[in-house]
Amino acid sequence: MSKCIFCKIASGEIPSEKIFESDNFFVIKDVNPKVKGHSLVISKKHFENFMELSPELYSEFLETVKGAVEKLGAEAFNLVVNNGEIAGQIIPHLHLHILPRKSDDGFDFGV
Amino acid sequence: MSKCIFCKIASGEIPSEKIFESDNFFVIKDVNPKVKGHSLVISKKHFENFMELSPELYSEFLETVKGAVEKLGAEAFNLVVNNGEIAGQIIPHLHLHILPRKSDDGFDFGV
Repeated sequence: MSKCIFCKIASGEIPSEKIFESDNFFVIKDVNPKVKGHSLVISKKHFENFMELSPELYSEFLETVKGAVEKLGAEAFNLVVNNGEIAGQIIPHLHLHILPRKSDDGFDFGV
Repeated sequence: MSKCIFCKIASGEIPSEKIFESDNFFVIKDVNPKVKGHSLVISKKHFENFMELSPELYSEFLETVKGAVEKLGAEAFNLVVNNGEIAGQIIPHLHLHILPRKSDDGFDFGV
């Protein structure tokens, strides 16, 4: 009965093309990409945000990020986690943005 | 003989006020803050970027981030890692930005 869209994607209720996967995380393309290859690393289990993620998954979380970056072939990239609605977290289920960067992509978020 | 500014801060050659610290990481305020409380989680050992960070430090890295967020008292925040000069990484030594957010801070990087 979960209404969380990322839980539905994790369970397969909503089909998705997973570009990378580990035991506890999966990676899909963002449906509203800011740059080419914009992807999301999402926990399979529901954690509301970064602060709720189980510390025993920290290592696997970053291993999955690294694996996804390699799969994307991104040499330069930004990693972004928004924690909380005020910080721009739209879906309250842990996810990390990978933004592959090119010198001419015109993208600049100024951090 | 290192010329890396973050190595000099890590060694104490350049004094700094560490707001949080773990065995392998320390946290200082960004000298050019984008928002109030803008802080940097920096590895004590020199890693050029996120991809170079030893996987055995992944867990401690995120534990340090979480500890720093709690120390800052930030309920909403953005975490940002820029990997590579094209992605806006100015100092080639691993660091993660913590940007505490308030609803009226006027900051928006659009990710």
